[in-house]
Amino acid sequence: MIVKKMQALGEKRSVIREIFEYGNARRKEIGAENVFDFSLGNPSVPAPDAVGEALIKMLQESDSVSLHGYTSAPGDLGVRASIAEYLNKTYNVGAKPSDLYMTVGAAASLSACLSAVAGAGEEVVVFAPFFPEYRVFTEQTGASLRIVPADETNFEINFDALADALSEKTAAVIINSPNNPSGAVISEASIIRLAEILSAAEEKYGHVIYLIADEPYRELVYDDIAVPYVTKYYDDTLVCYSFSKSLSLPGERIGYVLVSPTAKEHDAVYAAICGAGRALGYVCAPSLFQKLLPHCLGMVSDLATYKLNRDLLYEGLSSSGFTLKKPDGAFYLFMKSPEADANAFCERAKKYELLLVPGDDFACPGYVRIAYCVTTEQIRRSLPAFAALAKEYSL
Amino acid sequence: MIVKKMQALGEKRSVIREIFEYGNARRKEIGAENVFDFSLGNPSVPAPDAVGEALIKMLQESDSVSLHGYTSAPGDLGVRASIAEYLNKTYNVGAKPSDLYMTVGAAASLSACLSAVAGAGEEVVVFAPFFPEYRVFTEQTGASLRIVPADETNFEINFDALADALSEKTAAVIINSPNNPSGAVISEASIIRLAEILSAAEEKYGHVIYLIADEPYRELVYDDIAVPYVTKYYDDTLVCYSFSKSLSLPGERIGYVLVSPTAKEHDAVYAAICGAGRALGYVCAPSLFQKLLPHCLGMVSDLATYKLNRDLLYEGLSSSGFTLKKPDGAFYLFMKSPEADANAFCERAKKYELLLVPGDDFACPGYVRIAYCVTTEQIRRSLPAFAALAKEYSL
Repeated sequence: MIVKKMQALGEKRSVIREIFEYGNARRKEIGAENVFDFSLGNPSVPAPDAVGEALIKMLQESDSVSLHGYTSAPGDLGVRASIAEYLNKTYNVGAKPSDLYMTVGAAASLSACLSAVAGAGEEVVVFAPFFPEYRVFTEQTGASLRIVPADETNFEINFDALADALSEKTAAVIINSPNNPSGAVISEASIIRLAEILSAAEEKYGHVIYLIADEPYRELVYDDIAVPYVTKYYDDTLVCYSFSKSLSLPGERIGYVLVSPTAKEHDAVYAAICGAGRALGYVCAPSLFQKLLPHCLGMVSDLATYKLNRDLLYEGLSSSGFTLKKPDGAFYLFMKSPEADANAFCERAKKYELLLVPGDDFACPGYVRIAYCVTTEQIRRSLPAFAALAKEYSL
Repeated sequence: MIVKKMQALGEKRSVIREIFEYGNARRKEIGAENVFDFSLGNPSVPAPDAVGEALIKMLQESDSVSLHGYTSAPGDLGVRASIAEYLNKTYNVGAKPSDLYMTVGAAASLSACLSAVAGAGEEVVVFAPFFPEYRVFTEQTGASLRIVPADETNFEINFDALADALSEKTAAVIINSPNNPSGAVISEASIIRLAEILSAAEEKYGHVIYLIADEPYRELVYDDIAVPYVTKYYDDTLVCYSFSKSLSLPGERIGYVLVSPTAKEHDAVYAAICGAGRALGYVCAPSLFQKLLPHCLGMVSDLATYKLNRDLLYEGLSSSGFTLKKPDGAFYLFMKSPEADANAFCERAKKYELLLVPGDDFACPGYVRIAYCVTTEQIRRSLPAFAALAKEYSL
């Protein structure tokens, strides 16, 4: 019998996708250059040249059977050794290949981790604003989401509300820094405070609470902002990483989970992540793109464009009178809606061909997300439209 | 809390993998050329040249952002249109792009289909011998497996036992033709009879029963054997396809689900498959390998080597006195163990450095699987070892 929950998940198009489809229709009507579509978090800069070069070289020189063959389920051992070496050199993680499980991108990293550590009757704590699929992956395990409301001063962590959210039911806590949709980066002081609170909660409730660090935007930070490496501060950390944004390869689905070498139940949780991957139908991460990674670790696609976009857009919006904080990372601006209902504001923005995403979907009403992973030309051309929109609100 | 079921799945290495690891140890001890490892179903022939050529051309000529970007969740529309056109031309399926959902390989195809149509309290019928991961994917949905014992005369379908297995609980039936591990191909007459039985059961129990056709070996058949295209015979068919074996790309994880255009609940089950893919953490199938497919539809990697291997091995084993049927497809021989306990036989075979897989894992005790996707040289060199082993049993 058709599983209704799955049918509903397949039928309900996300709000972001709806806006993007509206944009497609408008592009046909009035020309792509006249639609200011800020809806999708799809990298707009190409992969570093080294990516294509390394792929071509492997295809020309490697034996087809080994290049395209199955890797072991947790991933090619040499690839995992390279990543461990890179993490140790860069963040002093103390990682071994046996701490790493290669995945089919960040969504697969998250779903494997959540299926490994959360189940019916348990809770996964998330901080608003958060990526809406966290709910889907959590509920798939039988656990439920416990939402900590946003700290609107800086979009880091609302510590007062966190204290209320933790309980004997807490299986895991998800953080996402740099954050989608706010662009906020959690400071070292906040990570230290979070680690203290979670350690106390582990003690109080007598079981491990996993801190899942969802980090697809780790390298997308500006102005020398530091993104603390979480395993240093909290032992029971699972890092979910993806190369989608850093290497502009979102469609290729390649990432990994790092189980902190210091995790108290290290071997059991690593096995459970491997088992969850198996149960969900992941055989191995794509072989060619696994083998690409040793050639590209530490590389980042053109950050200067994103920074220029951020600066232009931040200046333009601020001088038009909108209220927003300059984001430190990722490629999103999270702006206060000038009217309480962000959906109504987004509708009004459409009159100026500005396509923005209401914060409601990220559990943060009253805000809009503006994805600036677009051409700089689009940013420049959109500023008069934003200015005209601001005028409607007498900003 | 760590999910024990997942931990167990991660800790328990499959029997096949155990044998392969034993082989790795022996290869180090006595040299690879002296170990006759028939354990793994990993294609031994390279991908067709057109695969590497098309990949290189795309990497040299295509825009990086669109080549590596997200595709829509069900897959790139142009790719799906090409596959539909190929299926229509080749099998007269009447497929549209909206019948196709691109997946991260056959395991993902199966897990998405099973999560879409089966749940707690329901049963999924499988025919022994069958691929052991069917159990994992089925149990992940909350449903349980109902095993129809093998028809040992031809390893097609044991129709008498099937009648007993069907009930109001039956959500789906899985067939796998050409079969892993037997190499059997289900004949058109058997497909017709199966379709009649399932249609009668749908009528009797008042709900749809999905026929899941797991077809990664569709093109790997010899001597002009026909593999009937199942949608022609039964409306409620879900075809799970993978390019792993046909194009020798098992590590790249690329395949699709075809929902039969005639399925009674077509739109609902298609949505449920999309929803299941989403819930399991699949965002899209790998973009570069999706875009490769229109260049390679209908191509098959070197079948002549597999056929030669099959013929040499079949002749050699038969003339040594072993009992086996010549397989029509895939790259496996399924041979009767000369003693009742196939595990004991496999242990004895190890004395001759012959690594075989007991049929027990495929729910078919008393048989062994011999994967002949190896070098022809290995086949030739192994025949004296098989002959010596046969002598131990006075065959």
